[in-house]
Amino acid sequence: MLRKPRLFTPGPTPLLPAAQVAMASASMHHRTSDFRALYSETLADLKEFIGTHNDVLVLASSGTGAMEASISNLTSPGDKVLVLSAGKFGERWRDLATSFGCKVEMVSAPYGQTFTPADIRSKLDEGPGVVYMQATESSTGARHDVESVSRLMRAHAPAALLVVDAITGLGTTQFDIDGWGIDVIIGGSQKALMIPPGLAYCSVSERAWQRMESAHSPRYYFDLRKERKAASKGESAFTPATSLVAALAAALKYIRQIGNGNLAAGRNTLITGAELSAEMTRAAAQALGLQLFSPGCPASALTALVPPPGIDSGKIVSTFREQFGAVIANGQSEMKGKLFRIAHLGYYDYLDTIAIIGALEHVLASVTNGKVEFGMGLRAAQTTYAEHTAELCEAKAL
Amino acid sequence: MLRKPRLFTPGPTPLLPAAQVAMASASMHHRTSDFRALYSETLADLKEFIGTHNDVLVLASSGTGAMEASISNLTSPGDKVLVLSAGKFGERWRDLATSFGCKVEMVSAPYGQTFTPADIRSKLDEGPGVVYMQATESSTGARHDVESVSRLMRAHAPAALLVVDAITGLGTTQFDIDGWGIDVIIGGSQKALMIPPGLAYCSVSERAWQRMESAHSPRYYFDLRKERKAASKGESAFTPATSLVAALAAALKYIRQIGNGNLAAGRNTLITGAELSAEMTRAAAQALGLQLFSPGCPASALTALVPPPGIDSGKIVSTFREQFGAVIANGQSEMKGKLFRIAHLGYYDYLDTIAIIGALEHVLASVTNGKVEFGMGLRAAQTTYAEHTAELCEAKAL
Repeated sequence: MLRKPRLFTPGPTPLLPAAQVAMASASMHHRTSDFRALYSETLADLKEFIGTHNDVLVLASSGTGAMEASISNLTSPGDKVLVLSAGKFGERWRDLATSFGCKVEMVSAPYGQTFTPADIRSKLDEGPGVVYMQATESSTGARHDVESVSRLMRAHAPAALLVVDAITGLGTTQFDIDGWGIDVIIGGSQKALMIPPGLAYCSVSERAWQRMESAHSPRYYFDLRKERKAASKGESAFTPATSLVAALAAALKYIRQIGNGNLAAGRNTLITGAELSAEMTRAAAQALGLQLFSPGCPASALTALVPPPGIDSGKIVSTFREQFGAVIANGQSEMKGKLFRIAHLGYYDYLDTIAIIGALEHVLASVTNGKVEFGMGLRAAQTTYAEHTAELCEAKAL
Repeated sequence: MLRKPRLFTPGPTPLLPAAQVAMASASMHHRTSDFRALYSETLADLKEFIGTHNDVLVLASSGTGAMEASISNLTSPGDKVLVLSAGKFGERWRDLATSFGCKVEMVSAPYGQTFTPADIRSKLDEGPGVVYMQATESSTGARHDVESVSRLMRAHAPAALLVVDAITGLGTTQFDIDGWGIDVIIGGSQKALMIPPGLAYCSVSERAWQRMESAHSPRYYFDLRKERKAASKGESAFTPATSLVAALAAALKYIRQIGNGNLAAGRNTLITGAELSAEMTRAAAQALGLQLFSPGCPASALTALVPPPGIDSGKIVSTFREQFGAVIANGQSEMKGKLFRIAHLGYYDYLDTIAIIGALEHVLASVTNGKVEFGMGLRAAQTTYAEHTAELCEAKAL
């Protein structure tokens, strides 16, 4: 049987065909009125997609570039910052802030868990200038409660800025960016936006712009003030990744289309889709006796699962690839071998979700020598889907 | 949830990405050495794919164009021909032969069935010049026994030519074209070859070339002798569909690749894949209490299913599309409403097969008000797949 190469990884995610076509056919110079028109429109659409009144910028970099920008633009060497960390991407905030000479305070939770308000509160009392966190920690499949953190900050550290890495969070979970006071929120192209890696994007609040005036960490390529100035003229400060911008424009057009002309509605469709795919996958996991790696706070962007006792998750990852051509993710660093991750963010639908669960049952049968009853996970996922669909119909009928 | 537009129709079938890229980037003139090199190589590859020593030609037309060519090139008005018909495509042979003034004898079987040797034999005794048949009748999901027909012809009408419409048969079922003595076998681009509609292809035996010298039905565009002459120089008689030729070249390259450098082996992978997908679908249908439309002779190219009592199959087709974005086929003409068809030919794999069966269970639940136990069809399909995989492993171990 054929084995189509397919991504079920939490980035890169499957590509939107319309974006592939736009990307392949894009051939333009970036200092032209045509590109300026496209870029301005794309930034405006992206702002609607993110859902904020703040400025929105695009960088030719991976998401980590925008993370670095929100360290280097908002801090000076020696500044006290607070990092909330419960996984590899939380640790990236720590490493970035350390690289730029910040004095890093940490609220840490074990991998697979999230933070307690009491721990955060005590650290907020120490007066950090900026708080850095993830919306969803892709390394563990955990969701962190950004709204609660923002509420704690308003009460206990109102001057501190809140920076949220929502690279896998945007398009998979709801944010009230302006209402909660998220000063910088960061996204990446290869996630819910359904295009390849290469672009980071972020929104920047007025408070964050003000902070930049006094912050003096070294920065050049990622100087957000330069980008803001260029963006106001429909340009980027440095050569933009034009084909990816064309892909982004097409993706945003598609998201508007699935939202019947409304980008926010389209984003909500993506979010509810990821939520349902995640819920189906969790139901299947439970029916198959698999433990969630982050049972207390599972994200909708991806599901991290613990392999059956005695099985290395690397074996599961390689069996998926060899038997079915499907690429799922292993655990990272010290989590390697201990969990495997299946993504739900971006261009996925019912058929993708049910198909990967079907394949999972064969993979489990293969690595456990047959200790799987076929159809059990699938039926649980189908029941979840059917219940959700029935609820939607009832809601519409009311 | 998103609904990706997906084809599960017995042509057009899902496109091979590498062929899409080749097609989109093809921009060449057809009277150049570059194109001649590509066209010659593609014809040679196609010959290997079909599996014959006969000449192979490509036409810029749908499959019906090659069907017409094998009427107009092999008959003269008033010639006696025999058509084996058990569906809409058998009837197309009848209509074509009638249009060109042939005296058409028929062996007919009811829709969903195939022919009895006794019926064929008695008609062969009447001395038809050509016998026309389908390898698989896409309108009913039936497979006809080409080998038996060829054997009967050798015994009872050795001078008659055998023309086989294998538009959905090539790449889904095995043929020994030269061994059985198939004089013309016809294929289409939008089937197992995984590219869009627009190209027909056929192989032509030495006996058929000889017949063409005396046959004098009117023909111009579909004059196969012109195509043979042009093909010998790496050209086509009329303007070729260059982008589709580029796509075809890429598809054949892919088929060679999955056959580890051997096109025939790649074709066999396509065939066994379609067979397994069909077997999984039949197992699921049985578990779900659905009747096959052609239970005695099911094809591997597609499965035609009878809807539950009292349900119009059009409702099933529209529910697939509305709920899941999946396009399956209704019955044609008088079979409309009475069957629905799910394809297995071309670029499909396990994940596609299991996904469409999962969706089928929801569709059945929807049209029957819930009289479906989720997972029953899926489990049967998975069990079929697992047994097949285990057999393969055992066979390899021996």
